[in-house]
Amino acid sequence: MDPRIRDHAEILTDHSTQVEAGDNVLVRAPPAAEDLAVAVAEKLGEIGANASVTLSSTRATRAFVQAGDTDDFELNEHTLAMMEETDVVIIIKGDRNTAEMSDVPPAKHTAYAESQRPIVDERTNKRWVGTQFPASGEAQKAEMSTEAYEEFVYGAVNKDWDAQREHQSQMVEILDPADEVRIVSGETTDLTMSVAGMKTANDYGEKNLPGGEVFTAPVPDSVEGEVLFDKPLVRQGREIEDAWLRFEDGDVVEHDAEKNEDVLAAVLNTDDGARRLGELGIGMNRDIDRFTYNMLFDEKMGDTVHLAVGSAIRETVPDGQTYNESAVHMDMIVDMAEDSYIEVDDEIVQRDGTFRFEDGFEG
Amino acid sequence: MDPRIRDHAEILTDHSTQVEAGDNVLVRAPPAAEDLAVAVAEKLGEIGANASVTLSSTRATRAFVQAGDTDDFELNEHTLAMMEETDVVIIIKGDRNTAEMSDVPPAKHTAYAESQRPIVDERTNKRWVGTQFPASGEAQKAEMSTEAYEEFVYGAVNKDWDAQREHQSQMVEILDPADEVRIVSGETTDLTMSVAGMKTANDYGEKNLPGGEVFTAPVPDSVEGEVLFDKPLVRQGREIEDAWLRFEDGDVVEHDAEKNEDVLAAVLNTDDGARRLGELGIGMNRDIDRFTYNMLFDEKMGDTVHLAVGSAIRETVPDGQTYNESAVHMDMIVDMAEDSYIEVDDEIVQRDGTFRFEDGFEG
Repeated sequence: MDPRIRDHAEILTDHSTQVEAGDNVLVRAPPAAEDLAVAVAEKLGEIGANASVTLSSTRATRAFVQAGDTDDFELNEHTLAMMEETDVVIIIKGDRNTAEMSDVPPAKHTAYAESQRPIVDERTNKRWVGTQFPASGEAQKAEMSTEAYEEFVYGAVNKDWDAQREHQSQMVEILDPADEVRIVSGETTDLTMSVAGMKTANDYGEKNLPGGEVFTAPVPDSVEGEVLFDKPLVRQGREIEDAWLRFEDGDVVEHDAEKNEDVLAAVLNTDDGARRLGELGIGMNRDIDRFTYNMLFDEKMGDTVHLAVGSAIRETVPDGQTYNESAVHMDMIVDMAEDSYIEVDDEIVQRDGTFRFEDGFEG
Repeated sequence: MDPRIRDHAEILTDHSTQVEAGDNVLVRAPPAAEDLAVAVAEKLGEIGANASVTLSSTRATRAFVQAGDTDDFELNEHTLAMMEETDVVIIIKGDRNTAEMSDVPPAKHTAYAESQRPIVDERTNKRWVGTQFPASGEAQKAEMSTEAYEEFVYGAVNKDWDAQREHQSQMVEILDPADEVRIVSGETTDLTMSVAGMKTANDYGEKNLPGGEVFTAPVPDSVEGEVLFDKPLVRQGREIEDAWLRFEDGDVVEHDAEKNEDVLAAVLNTDDGARRLGELGIGMNRDIDRFTYNMLFDEKMGDTVHLAVGSAIRETVPDGQTYNESAVHMDMIVDMAEDSYIEVDDEIVQRDGTFRFEDGFEG
């Protein structure tokens, strides 16, 4: 086995989820990522955890959802019962075909996901991590050879996460006490929002591996302006190209997309919260140096900002604060590399992708 | 997809487990059998069941068990919680390498299996079925091309199970009211046992697919004599060759094997019940016409008898009857094709593999 796979497994169990003897651990990986599942299982055996390691099948999920009726999907009570007794969840992605769900009608896909929402809610209360195995499907999506994609993934994943945390804390110190944030990019994006009273989180490879962002929650009704998401956004196996949103009093009042607009509309129509922002994230992982059409990586790039319609992430919301709730959470990326800036309380903190605390910054 | 796979899936959901709308169904298949998992998922979607379809990984199980300590394995409480909320379990086998567990020390393997026993016990109280996908590993084990092995598997599986039930009921009528059974083969096997008060079950593809046997439980302390299991027996990825047992008052008092005797010994030493017989089975599926080193098929062959050390199968034990209990259940086969007979209450009911109710029988 490639020794980088064992390194990856060790970061997952020791750094990301801090598995201990006796923990009930659930590991899910697609067949293409079986090597990493094996390496994680080995680590769990050494630690003395109680491991349920199973492989997922996107093909089987597609067949089930496609054959079912949109109105009839019910919660898997047995899967929920397992999740309730679980301490740690390790979710591995890595497909042979990233378009496997592409012929499921968006509304049906959303109805199925909604029916299983209590399982996701339960999981997010656990110690959990989502990560990526360098499978051929994602390599193809990134237009990279599998060999080059392996280099890319392990470069972003197997790194010094303590140093990364330190680097990112500089941005946390700016954003956490802030009131107003403004995102400007070219002629197409000029968005303002309040983050007053929210908490800025430092993502250094715990729930996402790779990590590499700082993120917070907008005050739901504070978002004003328009934004063009000019970077890759893949949902339900389909790419939404050039999604565009206009906000008034926090709500999406207009939307458009160059391609797969119906997928965007299905997400926005899930519930009321799906038409408001739940997250503002700023990418800071400099080992991610290209877009790969994979949100787990793309949103961590140093020259990007991402916004999510849908649910806020609970760790960014202090007790008692009003926040956005929804069944969905869809991240969308704005490229900030050129003709762009981030303003925090009227001060520019990033211009053309370079942070104020990095070399080469030009205020 | 090969249409025989969809036929197989339909027998699993409609005949074997009779899945209904709203049932919580658990499907487990190895990666090599993903096609069948997909076909079953499609059926479950049509039916309106709640499906958890996941793939298993023998490689991950091996890595976990190998890395763990024999004394430290604990029950997966989360997996048990899922099983408790499950109505139907469909277990699919089909490996790329049937020797995947072969370097795990037998005692360690047994300790792990014992730690997870409550999950197996819970599962056997559900509607469940175990079946086989024609994967390359089992084809190789059978010394068959994958193409020929597919023919073999679908011949045994995709058949008229109502007709098979009728055929087998002739043997149930002989065995169910019987007292003493005697199995004689060549110079090496002469075993007697009582089945008085036990119930003979007719296996027509419900819990095993293929089905094709009738089976009952010996009275635990009634077994006397010796038996040579001269047909393939694979346990924990290793073949036990020519296992030999001698019984007195129902207990194994002497045992031997030509190869992998330590695996046999580890099973017999699991607990007290592992040294007594829990099952007498008689193979009756004439579409299984060769040994393939796979107990699911071999034990159903028309010219064989099989005996299991370990736990009795509950459906063969009427309430209030004493029966054998154990953490293990290991089937072992005697070839009855030549120089052999089965005697029930002093009457010969099968000679050289031909039943009394079949053409060519010579009493």
